[in-house]
Amino acid sequence: MNEFELIGRYFHFSRAAVDGDTLGVGDDCALLALPAGEHLAISTDTLVSGVHFPADAPPGLLAKRALRVNLSDLAAMGADPLGFQLAITLPAVDAEWLNGFSTALAEDALLFNCPLLGGDTTKGALAMTLTVLGRVPRNRALLRSGAQAGDLIYVTGTLGDAAAGLHCLQSGQTNDFLLDRYWQPTPRVDVGKALQGLASAALDISDGLLQDVSHLARASGLGAVVDRNAIPLSAAIRAIAAPEQGYSWALFGGDDYELCFTLPPQHRAAMEQAMAAIGVQVTAIGRMVPYGGDLVQCLDERGSAVTVEASGYDHFRS
Amino acid sequence: MNEFELIGRYFHFSRAAVDGDTLGVGDDCALLALPAGEHLAISTDTLVSGVHFPADAPPGLLAKRALRVNLSDLAAMGADPLGFQLAITLPAVDAEWLNGFSTALAEDALLFNCPLLGGDTTKGALAMTLTVLGRVPRNRALLRSGAQAGDLIYVTGTLGDAAAGLHCLQSGQTNDFLLDRYWQPTPRVDVGKALQGLASAALDISDGLLQDVSHLARASGLGAVVDRNAIPLSAAIRAIAAPEQGYSWALFGGDDYELCFTLPPQHRAAMEQAMAAIGVQVTAIGRMVPYGGDLVQCLDERGSAVTVEASGYDHFRS
Repeated sequence: MNEFELIGRYFHFSRAAVDGDTLGVGDDCALLALPAGEHLAISTDTLVSGVHFPADAPPGLLAKRALRVNLSDLAAMGADPLGFQLAITLPAVDAEWLNGFSTALAEDALLFNCPLLGGDTTKGALAMTLTVLGRVPRNRALLRSGAQAGDLIYVTGTLGDAAAGLHCLQSGQTNDFLLDRYWQPTPRVDVGKALQGLASAALDISDGLLQDVSHLARASGLGAVVDRNAIPLSAAIRAIAAPEQGYSWALFGGDDYELCFTLPPQHRAAMEQAMAAIGVQVTAIGRMVPYGGDLVQCLDERGSAVTVEASGYDHFRS
Repeated sequence: MNEFELIGRYFHFSRAAVDGDTLGVGDDCALLALPAGEHLAISTDTLVSGVHFPADAPPGLLAKRALRVNLSDLAAMGADPLGFQLAITLPAVDAEWLNGFSTALAEDALLFNCPLLGGDTTKGALAMTLTVLGRVPRNRALLRSGAQAGDLIYVTGTLGDAAAGLHCLQSGQTNDFLLDRYWQPTPRVDVGKALQGLASAALDISDGLLQDVSHLARASGLGAVVDRNAIPLSAAIRAIAAPEQGYSWALFGGDDYELCFTLPPQHRAAMEQAMAAIGVQVTAIGRMVPYGGDLVQCLDERGSAVTVEASGYDHFRS
């Protein structure tokens, strides 16, 4: 099977899902319309076999994770998905693998209303790069740089589950909830949209809470104080590990794809109402402060500083 | 050096090049405005070490080739560049390599008015995926599917040079012109724009003329007749090889990134005037015909069919 037959067989699924103003797979470029008064939001993420996922990862889970991880970047900007391009590098044409991958990808493309709009297939070590496109009303995007001193820091959902799931995966433990949290994170697109005009800054938690909060603090020219014991841990984590381990997964583990956002205190009631309306749990975990030499201070229940290694998930650590 | 330092040092160059309505590197997504009445054009291409370029390729040439190959897809739609995202996978942080790569990339980003708008850096086997974004007035994009029977088939420039350049590279011959044609193809952005409203269909020649003409014919539901001896060969090819070899490079070699377009005969004078205005050579090489069982027929100087292997550059050939 050559490249063209491959594309034709496995990656044409979204063509029918796009409307008359859009051109999907099959020409030199895809075409897309953007409503007047909106900005295009674009994000690209690569997943490399053996680095970002185990080489023997089930193709369906991999497809879902790849798309969701990218959609999370749109969510973090408050953007609505328009579509995505997939560049996939494969060591060989494996019909069973491709069938599992493309079927799951088509399911999630439909679920998140984010059609496949072309891409590229190449031969080489297994890897995939997705570029997601979204739209957000002008001047309503949630940037990292908008936080003010005194803003509260919130996170959605529970943290550390993905790292705990990866731990289960690597140690052969079965734990459906945690494994699901690792393989199928929920991109918080609805949260991002609901936070437009309320949150002062936002990002998604992909590198571990402390690393990500430090990005937000740096971009905003501030410091952040995180109350470690306020970090929401799932019942599933509490069932398999001591709180210290749970906090460690949350602080350093990454891959949760929950949102972290800052909120001017006067927007608290409006934000809580908006989150209740979409049924999403949010937890205040700290506050933004003037920069005083530390991007992030993490305090334990006694108010003592937790030793923060400059860790996080670094794709270039050896 | 970790991922964040790497991004900061080598890939922030385009930030200053973008205007106030654009957000480049450094947030969860890039943001971009699109003029009213225009479509967004998007294309993604991956280049894998050892498949699409030699593992020891000079990083500067590689950077330029990667961007130009992608810009060629915009050109083939008649689109103007808006910017691009770069997902680069590196086996290690090699300062000299990265400096060469990013310097050349910045040069070409400026030359083609196509700023870097973020992306991703990951660890693994050397590969790069670029997603280019462009804009084209609504209903003016040059699709593959618009050709009509009776339309003339044209190509820009000369064909086969890139394949001849690769041959020189692989056999250790020095030939600046042909090596340049391989490493630094010229994306025909000006041609694509000038052909809006004139050409009925277009694509860029990346897989070899016959393969690419067959894509256009299939998309348009037609056949194509190509006059092999009308194919423009460069003086450089004629100096190193017999015409038969030159035609073979042109027909099957790929990587030229010239444009191939179809033209209703009544637009001939207007098209020639437009091409003369931008100083680009175009050559008529055939015509579109009703489909009669062959997507492409290639005829030699006696009108005999040239044996056409279903070849072209197939990234999955072993």
